[in-house]
Amino acid sequence: MTMMATTSKIGLEDIKTAFNRISGLVHKTDIITSSTLDRMAGKKLYFKTEMFQKTGSFKARGALNAIKCALENGGSVPGIVTHSSGNHGQAVAWAANQMGLPCTVVVPQDTPSVKCEAIKGYDAELVFCESSPTARKETCDKIAADTGKVIIHPYDNYDVIAGQGTIGLELLTQVPDLDAILVPISGGGMTSGICVAARGIRPECKVIAVEPRGKELWKSLEANQRLWSNPPQFLDTIAEGIKTQQVGQLTFPLLCDHVAGVITVTDKDMSDAMKLVAERMKIVIEAASGAAVAAALSEQINNMEGVEKVGVILCGGNVDMDRLPWLEERFK
Amino acid sequence: MTMMATTSKIGLEDIKTAFNRISGLVHKTDIITSSTLDRMAGKKLYFKTEMFQKTGSFKARGALNAIKCALENGGSVPGIVTHSSGNHGQAVAWAANQMGLPCTVVVPQDTPSVKCEAIKGYDAELVFCESSPTARKETCDKIAADTGKVIIHPYDNYDVIAGQGTIGLELLTQVPDLDAILVPISGGGMTSGICVAARGIRPECKVIAVEPRGKELWKSLEANQRLWSNPPQFLDTIAEGIKTQQVGQLTFPLLCDHVAGVITVTDKDMSDAMKLVAERMKIVIEAASGAAVAAALSEQINNMEGVEKVGVILCGGNVDMDRLPWLEERFK
Repeated sequence: MTMMATTSKIGLEDIKTAFNRISGLVHKTDIITSSTLDRMAGKKLYFKTEMFQKTGSFKARGALNAIKCALENGGSVPGIVTHSSGNHGQAVAWAANQMGLPCTVVVPQDTPSVKCEAIKGYDAELVFCESSPTARKETCDKIAADTGKVIIHPYDNYDVIAGQGTIGLELLTQVPDLDAILVPISGGGMTSGICVAARGIRPECKVIAVEPRGKELWKSLEANQRLWSNPPQFLDTIAEGIKTQQVGQLTFPLLCDHVAGVITVTDKDMSDAMKLVAERMKIVIEAASGAAVAAALSEQINNMEGVEKVGVILCGGNVDMDRLPWLEERFK
Repeated sequence: MTMMATTSKIGLEDIKTAFNRISGLVHKTDIITSSTLDRMAGKKLYFKTEMFQKTGSFKARGALNAIKCALENGGSVPGIVTHSSGNHGQAVAWAANQMGLPCTVVVPQDTPSVKCEAIKGYDAELVFCESSPTARKETCDKIAADTGKVIIHPYDNYDVIAGQGTIGLELLTQVPDLDAILVPISGGGMTSGICVAARGIRPECKVIAVEPRGKELWKSLEANQRLWSNPPQFLDTIAEGIKTQQVGQLTFPLLCDHVAGVITVTDKDMSDAMKLVAERMKIVIEAASGAAVAAALSEQINNMEGVEKVGVILCGGNVDMDRLPWLEERFK
């Protein structure tokens, strides 16, 4: 993308500080490889295994960093509240529990039961709301106003972004000569954090965002302008973890600054990738992770010259094992 | 079990030699842990992740060791032949391919397609036969007689046993103070190999065999006598990898010598364990591995005094992802 002369609100140092702040409570996740998938991709793939992260997704990093920052900044923190379609909710519930704080999580009514149970398992209170971005935000704001609980936004929060950026810091330490990193994108917290890390550590490493159909991120990035229609919407996708159409207000400029490309995948692509990874690599990944795998196997990546070593972010593995997409008639 | 004054045909040194022979071509698989499953078991569990082994199961170890031994022993080795319900077949096909040898694998007609494809993927020839132990053996013997190909038996072969024993050697190096190891048992190659390793390295570590219902291994072990009715049968179980009822002629005395107990699990137990491990640990395990997990969560283990640290052998992860047992009506 166009290089912009922004005064950056977040840099590599913030990510290194976040790394030190959250180390010990979150895992430094392993890199795994698969000769079968390498052959299929025609590239050397390095899978970052965030489904083995605490709470089953990368979200534990940002949530813990943000909550620890809130406590470090002083002031009263009577508790934590957030809204989330699931993974961020679990992560915030877990992180609040780690820090001994009460927590409320606002979730849409259609959240898979396995995610609701997991949130309750970390002693958080669940509040259900309508399944629209607006309803979620309003419910969350009202709870914060009524109780004084601190809101941890899923992505539009620099401490969250810095926490997610630790994925990039780790990955580029584990595989220092990566040519590209494929990152599933929703609000853009993880992608922008990885952008900041890559830009600081290895600017020639391309960060490529992977989106479900209908997001049309590239148009907005290329225009350097938010071209989405309002109010914000959810995409019609099986990838419940990346269904937010618009990226955040804070994440957008960071993405404009460093995202080198966008790959769009279909539900069928994601479903096939989930099944392939289960069969060949013996790991459970959710559809959002499947998006990154599908992108790694896509023609776009295969045709990309000078890109040989590719990081693939398996961002989470929270799957309702009673509702696997490849067993649905429409994906067979 | 009763200690017998046998002159052992296989000892720890054989397993160490096998370890050196196969290192580099097979993985030293990691140990993973889960605080959730530890809480459920009331024990500290150490999972040996053989589903990440080459070919998706531990069988790669024994197959490669036996084929390399056949080549080292001199004499003509025009090729390899074996019979197997799947995992051993894949492993032999892979190992023969590694050593540049042609390979024929006899499989029963009801073998899951994913396993057949995997065998063919290693350039082996598939020969189908009836789904009885006798038919498999006869077909295999005929091919060996006609072609001079060397038979690699799935378990009644000391080189195979020594290869599988490397699991125990690795595990007791990775977690030296284990109190018990739970091993899914079929013909007994893996269990007897782990027995030999444990007896040599840490005799006080109990090796506990985990069987599908109907095997009744304990009766024969306790009697020090083969009490099964002939001809040999397959058990009626979802655990296709451990459906052989009788253990082998070579493995039986080794099992009598060191197996400390047997835990029997149902198909429902295995199915529930597979699903639990997928949901909580994000890994794909086959029903035979589920047997060991179910045993780890059983009352028998929970009640076992002096047993705190338990190794759990996740022996394989070759699952037909279109036919998951917990989605079948009878297991819901």
